[in-house]
Amino acid sequence: MTQSKNETPMMNLSSENITENVKRINEAPDKPRLSYIMERLVSHVHDFARETRLSTKEWLAGIDYLTAVGVRQKSEFMLLSDILGLSLLVDSIDHPKPPGSTEGTLIGPFHSHEAEVMQNGDSISHDTNGTPCLVLGSVKDRQGQPIPGVKVDAWETDSSGHYDLQNEHRQNLDGRAVLESDPDGRFWFEAIIPVMYPIPHDGPVGQLLALLGRHPWRPAHMHFMFEKVGYDQLITALYMRGDPHETTDAVFGVKESLLVETSPASDAIAAQYGIKVGTPVLKHDFVLVSEAEASKLRDDLSVKALRDLGRKVKIVDGLPVPDVD
Amino acid sequence: MTQSKNETPMMNLSSENITENVKRINEAPDKPRLSYIMERLVSHVHDFARETRLSTKEWLAGIDYLTAVGVRQKSEFMLLSDILGLSLLVDSIDHPKPPGSTEGTLIGPFHSHEAEVMQNGDSISHDTNGTPCLVLGSVKDRQGQPIPGVKVDAWETDSSGHYDLQNEHRQNLDGRAVLESDPDGRFWFEAIIPVMYPIPHDGPVGQLLALLGRHPWRPAHMHFMFEKVGYDQLITALYMRGDPHETTDAVFGVKESLLVETSPASDAIAAQYGIKVGTPVLKHDFVLVSEAEASKLRDDLSVKALRDLGRKVKIVDGLPVPDVD
Repeated sequence: MTQSKNETPMMNLSSENITENVKRINEAPDKPRLSYIMERLVSHVHDFARETRLSTKEWLAGIDYLTAVGVRQKSEFMLLSDILGLSLLVDSIDHPKPPGSTEGTLIGPFHSHEAEVMQNGDSISHDTNGTPCLVLGSVKDRQGQPIPGVKVDAWETDSSGHYDLQNEHRQNLDGRAVLESDPDGRFWFEAIIPVMYPIPHDGPVGQLLALLGRHPWRPAHMHFMFEKVGYDQLITALYMRGDPHETTDAVFGVKESLLVETSPASDAIAAQYGIKVGTPVLKHDFVLVSEAEASKLRDDLSVKALRDLGRKVKIVDGLPVPDVD
Repeated sequence: MTQSKNETPMMNLSSENITENVKRINEAPDKPRLSYIMERLVSHVHDFARETRLSTKEWLAGIDYLTAVGVRQKSEFMLLSDILGLSLLVDSIDHPKPPGSTEGTLIGPFHSHEAEVMQNGDSISHDTNGTPCLVLGSVKDRQGQPIPGVKVDAWETDSSGHYDLQNEHRQNLDGRAVLESDPDGRFWFEAIIPVMYPIPHDGPVGQLLALLGRHPWRPAHMHFMFEKVGYDQLITALYMRGDPHETTDAVFGVKESLLVETSPASDAIAAQYGIKVGTPVLKHDFVLVSEAEASKLRDDLSVKALRDLGRKVKIVDGLPVPDVD
């Protein structure tokens, strides 16, 4: 197949016929998903050039821009995806949420797989300049049943608005932890109240934001990721209600259902969790979707999306490919 | 404007409404061309994700792939553009060719602005392993009039299929030169007969080609670029007829009108150019398009492309932007 494909005549390519030819030579029958992704990628990249009448100078500027995005000490491609809304879009496609479940949002470039495993009640932040708070959460299914043994990943910036990963001279990770929901589906930890911060904007992504007259700010938030076998992964965040950037998040992450407020710890809460009376408490109940429900919803939306493109579809490993039979 | 844009409410973004919101916040009224390019880019990137139902895992693989493309000693973004057909497409859009003019092709990643300025008759290659040849060219306009004083940029690989730029330990550039057409529009130089070669495929671009079952070969060719005020820049190449990869160029560059053959130097030619009788001579007449003709054609095609998108259009600095008035 490969051999015959590479022998198919391909010459005299013009702006009118190049797309069909590139698609054809990219076909890899033994890799239907890759073939489909490449086919849509080539279609859209070529249409982009045709519709904008992209000039050679602009194309070279694009190559230079992507090169600059890549040569940063930490590549800015995810940040670029974030400010183009692609990251939020991908989460919403990959993790569709039925009514009554907690909405998802983008993961952002600062998640780490190296976070310390902690126990409920531990403090995830050692920043003494931050305002301490207690995070009090629960994890339930859509039927309201608590889910024990959920891996809960939480991460936030320090009080200056920087993640540990942004500090080149860091000794340890800080402001993040991995916990587990208890038999009643509850988890709790001490942290600091999230603050607003600008995304890194001293590089190519910042230049693009400036060119477009956009600010780099994210409203104050704390990231969460929930994982347990049998449930669809939930990547989300809680946003502090009333933040000045609440409705202009540079990376499009805020959802109304994810806005939260703190309330001061009562005598009972203070006694129960060993904190001072009046400490701000950030309480939230998270609702996970079962893997079966999420799969079904994802598959249904995939079938619809490909039908809208005029394609018959089959689902392979949970992802759509055109059905050519 | 910037201020009010950044204050527009933007929350609860989903896979259905995120695209309109990202487009809106990217609007930069004082930069209509950038705004248009960003609008089409966001549309196509988002549609790509929606139509493929791009999974988080695939999106992360894409980010990692682009990062790998960027961290190469020499960024492979242009090579990636080449194997996706984007480079050929951009040349065909930016340099449209009316009938009777020499067709263009992609510039490729190995042009240099540092090439030595030489005189007609000089040798651009010092590779003693190559087969010497004489390149005998003319430059005319579409009315058949010779064009003197054209800057002629020529470049080719050595006999092993490598450009000078690919040799990290090079002392000097070789296999390239800048010449000027004489009062009769003619130019000539000694070189070596071009050989076929694989594009660099030890990096991310090579990995993608392998995944897709594609070979990395380019048929034997010599690159040319022609520039003179009043004429549209011509980026092209001559391809050696009969090359085994003639119709399967990995970067889609070959055009029938650019296929050439050598013929052995006659006694007269040998005497005139100071070469041995029988030396292969590669003779070709190039036809440039006037800047005015190319502009008109480019503008007409731009207007058509935007009309096909349902947009009114105005041309600013030779490039289209939607006419919002």
